[in-house]
Amino acid sequence: MKKQLPPSERLYPMPCVLVAAGTPADAAVMAVAWINVVSSTPPTVAMGIRRSRATLECIRERREFTVNIATTSMATEVDFCGIISGRTLDKAALAGFTFSRGNATRAPILDQCPYSLECRVTNELEVGDYVVVFGEIIATHADEAVLTADGKMVDVDKLDPLVYIAGQREYRKLGEKVSDAFSVGKQLLPPKE
Amino acid sequence: MKKQLPPSERLYPMPCVLVAAGTPADAAVMAVAWINVVSSTPPTVAMGIRRSRATLECIRERREFTVNIATTSMATEVDFCGIISGRTLDKAALAGFTFSRGNATRAPILDQCPYSLECRVTNELEVGDYVVVFGEIIATHADEAVLTADGKMVDVDKLDPLVYIAGQREYRKLGEKVSDAFSVGKQLLPPKE
Repeated sequence: MKKQLPPSERLYPMPCVLVAAGTPADAAVMAVAWINVVSSTPPTVAMGIRRSRATLECIRERREFTVNIATTSMATEVDFCGIISGRTLDKAALAGFTFSRGNATRAPILDQCPYSLECRVTNELEVGDYVVVFGEIIATHADEAVLTADGKMVDVDKLDPLVYIAGQREYRKLGEKVSDAFSVGKQLLPPKE
Repeated sequence: MKKQLPPSERLYPMPCVLVAAGTPADAAVMAVAWINVVSSTPPTVAMGIRRSRATLECIRERREFTVNIATTSMATEVDFCGIISGRTLDKAALAGFTFSRGNATRAPILDQCPYSLECRVTNELEVGDYVVVFGEIIATHADEAVLTADGKMVDVDKLDPLVYIAGQREYRKLGEKVSDAFSVGKQLLPPKE
């Protein structure tokens, strides 16, 4: 039996990344769950950010930012960055974060995160109190420790990314494998004539 | 030691939902991993869809669609909808899907999914070979079996949503709880003077 609930901004699950902007010496950082890839030509992310955010100002000014995947061991720091405004406290210092300069942009890469994307702003769109920022992914950086044996891509179990659950407001780990994509569905294909 | 990889459209993790459009009697359905909330005022989702998709045509024509969260038990059906084009086969029939008419829109709600959002298209933006479709969430429907005891929100363990891992192309389950959000980070606040 289906029940109708009030319309709500809940989709399951969401990532929970740290977005950084500014310079390595003076970086603004915020936690973002409303983010995903939207294109591969060119590789592009889009994220919804509350208009009042200090980090948004910084992104608009410099037109560059980084997306840094946090591990589950960083849940406390990520949550702190989601609770506190950078206008009142030095979030990055209190969280123990340090930054390096990107190769392809001048945006600050968060050293403590094992996987980072350097992005250049390509567009933005206002939706109510939020701004959807589009960023082309210019470069990708990964700790060798989170790569597959051939070094070609991320091994998600080594990465151990933080997962956000809206509504019940929890951080989760990733769970077990269900099946291979672009594979398991073939069994539903009708027999060839 | 960080290694630079080619820029790639990989963020971890992604949801994997079924988007439906058209009418309950003639529904187009596709698997979408590039989707997330982008605003709560009003509640709005954005998703990147390859321009050639049959379901996109249907969304553009009717200006309405539903987002249906698939459970991990539906991985085969979701994968099938991600592999096959609705231009060549009746995907929904082969996957055993049935649809009901929405309350707030005329878009088809996928009966087999325990959580669905009815959306009205508010905007779209082209990014390379992809179209980013923005949809305002007009109504939310959930099976009573996936709600918390008070019936007010989704219990994500009961929902058991499918998770998509880009790159290694796997479907995953959600894992264990790490900590409460908007809570655990408070321990990093400096002591009040």
